[in-house]
Amino acid sequence: MPLGELGADGRALLFTEARSANKFTDTPVSEGQLRDIYELFHYAPTQSNTNPLRILFVQSREQRERLLPHMSDGNRDKTSTAPATAVLAADLAFHEFIPQLFPTRAHARDRYEGDPELRERHSRFNAAMQIGYFVLAVRAVGLAAGPMAGFDAAGVDAEFFASSTWRSLLVVNIGEPAEGAWFPERLPRLEFDQAARIV
Amino acid sequence: MPLGELGADGRALLFTEARSANKFTDTPVSEGQLRDIYELFHYAPTQSNTNPLRILFVQSREQRERLLPHMSDGNRDKTSTAPATAVLAADLAFHEFIPQLFPTRAHARDRYEGDPELRERHSRFNAAMQIGYFVLAVRAVGLAAGPMAGFDAAGVDAEFFASSTWRSLLVVNIGEPAEGAWFPERLPRLEFDQAARIV
Repeated sequence: MPLGELGADGRALLFTEARSANKFTDTPVSEGQLRDIYELFHYAPTQSNTNPLRILFVQSREQRERLLPHMSDGNRDKTSTAPATAVLAADLAFHEFIPQLFPTRAHARDRYEGDPELRERHSRFNAAMQIGYFVLAVRAVGLAAGPMAGFDAAGVDAEFFASSTWRSLLVVNIGEPAEGAWFPERLPRLEFDQAARIV
Repeated sequence: MPLGELGADGRALLFTEARSANKFTDTPVSEGQLRDIYELFHYAPTQSNTNPLRILFVQSREQRERLLPHMSDGNRDKTSTAPATAVLAADLAFHEFIPQLFPTRAHARDRYEGDPELRERHSRFNAAMQIGYFVLAVRAVGLAAGPMAGFDAAGVDAEFFASSTWRSLLVVNIGEPAEGAWFPERLPRLEFDQAARIV
């Protein structure tokens, strides 16, 4: 059974014309939009349906002020003025949800319980994959994403996740792009033959 | 400047109705379709534009036979009959491409050169994020993806990447879904309030 294809507008919006934004208008991002992003990306697949990605959406001024000192110098100003910012994290205790997420394999919980190293590797890999879905879901709801790896992860974890099993991986600003949100020229990518082989 | 939103058909195709496929028709996947997948996902962002994901697309019978012994028992039959299979890998030597990918920060190459542990962490995290883009790009070109973590990564690396810096992360079958490609009921996901907080 043939499936449909994504049309030219959708390809442009999510992939070919989309850019990472560094500057946003002051149009607010609503809770409804944040829930729409979640609704979309959370269906995409993870290993054994474990879904280890967690999201702290930072919107209030007060909470944003707690985040800013942990951002690298080049990322602080834009994070200060973004309408919404997502701190994306891996849950090292993702296995506690296995009985809910995969009832017929509920026993897998115990294997992860006894192996913290496996839990850490599994949660970071699968949460990273989900971050890929997340970035494209932000674009799907009509907003621009500005992903940033330049921040002090240990500092963010101590500030926001001290009493939890969440560990920050990436911070993403979210909003409507302002004039000059990105450089005119996109950086180059690898050619197909540099990154892929068909055998 | 407001951006467009992805329409209902696109949301269904990529996110809300899409399923991981376990069974494919014998309709071939063309080289053109594999290149279309690459064309779409390769624009999506990575940290410092390093783009560490590599793809070995396995199509020929001969190469597929080399892959099958390394798949877990539950994944072997479907991988044997899938029209195309992608072995997704992180390139531990991704930093060699930095002068091409980020010319004004070409010197970053040297920092990675001297820190193999950083290279490994960076490449695995960013390649995993790109796998998220990849899975949605497969769906965007009208094909179904069947991601599989159940395989012997060390075995695959020894078989295909012995003389290279690629390290396998995930194997994904690709094709047109056959009747019964997935179970009728999708496994549950976490509710918004289980995985996200707004502050």
